[in-house]
Amino acid sequence: MLTKITGGITAPQGFTAAGVHAGIKKNGKTDIGMIYSKVPAAGAAMYTTNKMAAAPVIVSRQVSDRGKIRAIVVNSGCANACTGDQGLQDARTMVRVAAKALNLDDCEVLVASTGVIGVSLPMDKIKSGIAQAAAALSENGHEQALAAIMTTDTFPKVCAYEFNLGGKICKIAGIAKGAGMIHPNMATMLCFITTDAAIAPEVLKQALNQAAELSFNMISVDGDTSTNDMVAVLANGQAGNTLIDSAGSQTYQEFYTALRAVCTELAQLIVRDGEGATKFLEINVTGAVSFADAKLAAMAIAKSPLVKTAFFGQDPNWGRILCAVGYSGAATQPDKTSLTIGDLTIVVNGQGAVGFDTAKLKEVMAAKDIAITVDLGLGETSATVWTCDFSYEYVKINGEYTT
Amino acid sequence: MLTKITGGITAPQGFTAAGVHAGIKKNGKTDIGMIYSKVPAAGAAMYTTNKMAAAPVIVSRQVSDRGKIRAIVVNSGCANACTGDQGLQDARTMVRVAAKALNLDDCEVLVASTGVIGVSLPMDKIKSGIAQAAAALSENGHEQALAAIMTTDTFPKVCAYEFNLGGKICKIAGIAKGAGMIHPNMATMLCFITTDAAIAPEVLKQALNQAAELSFNMISVDGDTSTNDMVAVLANGQAGNTLIDSAGSQTYQEFYTALRAVCTELAQLIVRDGEGATKFLEINVTGAVSFADAKLAAMAIAKSPLVKTAFFGQDPNWGRILCAVGYSGAATQPDKTSLTIGDLTIVVNGQGAVGFDTAKLKEVMAAKDIAITVDLGLGETSATVWTCDFSYEYVKINGEYTT
Repeated sequence: MLTKITGGITAPQGFTAAGVHAGIKKNGKTDIGMIYSKVPAAGAAMYTTNKMAAAPVIVSRQVSDRGKIRAIVVNSGCANACTGDQGLQDARTMVRVAAKALNLDDCEVLVASTGVIGVSLPMDKIKSGIAQAAAALSENGHEQALAAIMTTDTFPKVCAYEFNLGGKICKIAGIAKGAGMIHPNMATMLCFITTDAAIAPEVLKQALNQAAELSFNMISVDGDTSTNDMVAVLANGQAGNTLIDSAGSQTYQEFYTALRAVCTELAQLIVRDGEGATKFLEINVTGAVSFADAKLAAMAIAKSPLVKTAFFGQDPNWGRILCAVGYSGAATQPDKTSLTIGDLTIVVNGQGAVGFDTAKLKEVMAAKDIAITVDLGLGETSATVWTCDFSYEYVKINGEYTT
Repeated sequence: MLTKITGGITAPQGFTAAGVHAGIKKNGKTDIGMIYSKVPAAGAAMYTTNKMAAAPVIVSRQVSDRGKIRAIVVNSGCANACTGDQGLQDARTMVRVAAKALNLDDCEVLVASTGVIGVSLPMDKIKSGIAQAAAALSENGHEQALAAIMTTDTFPKVCAYEFNLGGKICKIAGIAKGAGMIHPNMATMLCFITTDAAIAPEVLKQALNQAAELSFNMISVDGDTSTNDMVAVLANGQAGNTLIDSAGSQTYQEFYTALRAVCTELAQLIVRDGEGATKFLEINVTGAVSFADAKLAAMAIAKSPLVKTAFFGQDPNWGRILCAVGYSGAATQPDKTSLTIGDLTIVVNGQGAVGFDTAKLKEVMAAKDIAITVDLGLGETSATVWTCDFSYEYVKINGEYTT
C-alpha cells in the first residue's frame, strides 16, 4: 500500500536539496541543482548505453560502481556531451567543487548534465553556481532542485510515497526530466530518487535494474537514446527498517514495489510531457512467445512516425499499427494477430472484426489517453510500452532547439 | 556509358504500358496501371520483409519465383494489406483477370497494390479497370502507367537509359512511387524496371539483389518498412545481345552498372519526394569495420527525428548526429570519430574542430542538398544512405491520410 505524500525528494528523512540560477540557461531559469543526504547512503545508478556517452555519465559511472552516493550535482542548459577531454575534466571539476563545498570525498558525488550537445560548460558560472547551491541546501529545496533539471519540459515530474517496510514507515520520492531525445536504454534522461529505506547497495542496484527495465526502458518519445541518460537512487536508511540485504526477503518485495511505482509514474510523466505531445498512448502487446518479442513489437509501434502522426491527426489509419508489428522483428503470424484500440475490436485473427467502423475509431482516437492492444496469439508473454503522438509542435521545438 | 533517353518504361523494345481511372482513388486520378512485354521475358522481383506482407506481395512471390514475368498489374488507392483471406482471393482475381485479358498464363502476371492498409479492394471497379487497361496498352502509355502508381508523390519518378551491352544498344528504364512508409528492406514501395537486355532469370535476380542492396535498401523517409514494398524487373531480350548467363562476364558488369544506376536514381527520387521533405540528405559513414556497421550508423542518423527536424529548421544542432551514431549499435569510439557537414569540418577525433562556428554551419544547412560525413576512424569500409528532413508537412500529410 503506497500513500501519496508531499515534499518531493526531500520528503524521505535526512535529505536536503537546492536549485539556483548560475547563468547557463539564457532565460534566467534555475540551472544548477543539488541533492544531499545528511548521512552516508547506499546508491545505485543506471546510465545510457549510447556509445557517445556524455562526460558526466563516464565520471558518474566510476562513482556509482562503489555503491555509495551521498550527493548529486546536476546542471541543465548544456549536456557536456561530445566535448572530448575538456568535457571529462569539466565533469571531474564539478564533482570536486561540489565535494569540497559539502565536505565529502569526490567518490561520493554523482554528476549529471542535460542540454545542448557539443558545447563546453561555462566553468566559472558552474563553479559559483555549485557553491551557491551547496549553501542553499534545505529540506524545502526540492522544488528548486526539480526546476534545475528541466529543459523543454512543460511541467515538473515528481512523485513521493509513504509505505510500510517491515513495520517501519518508509518514504520514497523521485524527480525526472524528459521531453525529447527519449528512448531510454538502461536508464532515462535524468531521474533522481531518494528513499530513507535501509538497503544494501548491491540489492538496491538489483531493484533499480528490475524497476527501470519495466518503466524507463519501456517508454519512447522519439526513438533517440540520449547521450546523457541517468537514473540514480539514494537510500540513506533513516526510516530505521532492518537492512534489506537480500532480494529474497519480504521487505525487498515491499521496497521493490514502491521503487517500481515511482519509476513507472515518472516514466509515464515523461511521456505525457513528450515534446509536442497531445496524446498519451499505452501500447500493450500480448500473446508473445517472449518478453523480448512483445517489447520489440510494442516499441516498433511506439517509434513509428506514421502511427504517431495518425494519432495526432486522429486519423483512423489502424493498418499502420499492424505494419509496424510486421517489421518489428518479433515473431508474428498475420492470421493469429488481433488488434484493439480503446474498447474497439478492429482485427481478430487477421480478419476485420464484425461491426467495426472507422467513425467509431475516430471517436476513440479523440481521447487524450488511449490504449492499443495487439494480441500476437502465439504465446503467454506480454509487454507494455508508453509513448506519445507526433505533432507540429515536436517539429517546431526540434527545428529551433538551439536557435 | 549511360545515355539518358526519353520514353520511360516503354523505351526498351517490346514493352507497352497503360494507366486508367477505375474509381479506386476518390479524386478521379489514374489508379490502375499495366506493364506488358510483347514477348516472354525473364523476371526478378524483391519484396518487403514485413511479416504483415500484403496479399499482392504473397501472390506475386509465387509468380516471380519462376523467373518469368510477362506483365504487371498494379492499383493505387488501396494497399490490399491486412485484409485476410479475402485479400488473397482478391489479389489472385486481379492476376486471373489480367492474364485472361492479355491471353497469358496466371503465372506470368505480377500483381501490386499501394494505398490505405486494412481496406478491401472494390473488385468490380478493379475488374473493369483491368479490362480497360489491357485494351489501352500502347508504346505511349508509360506516363499513364506511372500516374497509376502515385499516391502522395508530388512528382513522377522515372528514368530511362541507353547503354552498350556487348556491342548491342540496350535500353533500361524504371518507374517508382515513394513518399511515405519508406524504409525499404529488400525492396521499396513499388518500382518497376523494364529492359530489352537478354539475361538469364537467375543472373537477373542476382543483379537486382545487388543493385537494390545499394540503392533502395539505403534510403529511409520515416523508418517504416511498408507491407507492400516491391521492386520488379522485366528483361525481354529484344536488344539482341548474347544472353547474359553468368555474373562473371563483362556484359554482366555492363548490365549491372546500368541497373544499379536506374535503381539508385529512382531511390534518390523517392527520398527527394519524401512526404513533406524540404531537404535531400546524403549520409556517408566512412572508416567502419564493416559495411553492416557503416549502414547501421548511417541509418540511425537517417531515422532520427531529432536530426531530421534540426535539418528542417536549419538548426546547427550537430551533436544529435553523433548521438545517433552512439546508439546505432555500430562499433564506435568517441575519440576516433570525426564529423563533416557540407564542406565544414566540425569534429576531428572527438574534439571540436579549430575555427568551427555555428554561424557557418547554419549557412551550410540552408542548402537543399546536404552531405553529412561521419568518419568512425576504425576501418576501411563505408556506406551511403539517403534521407530527407522531417517537416510540419509530414505531420500534416500523415495526420490526415485517410480523412
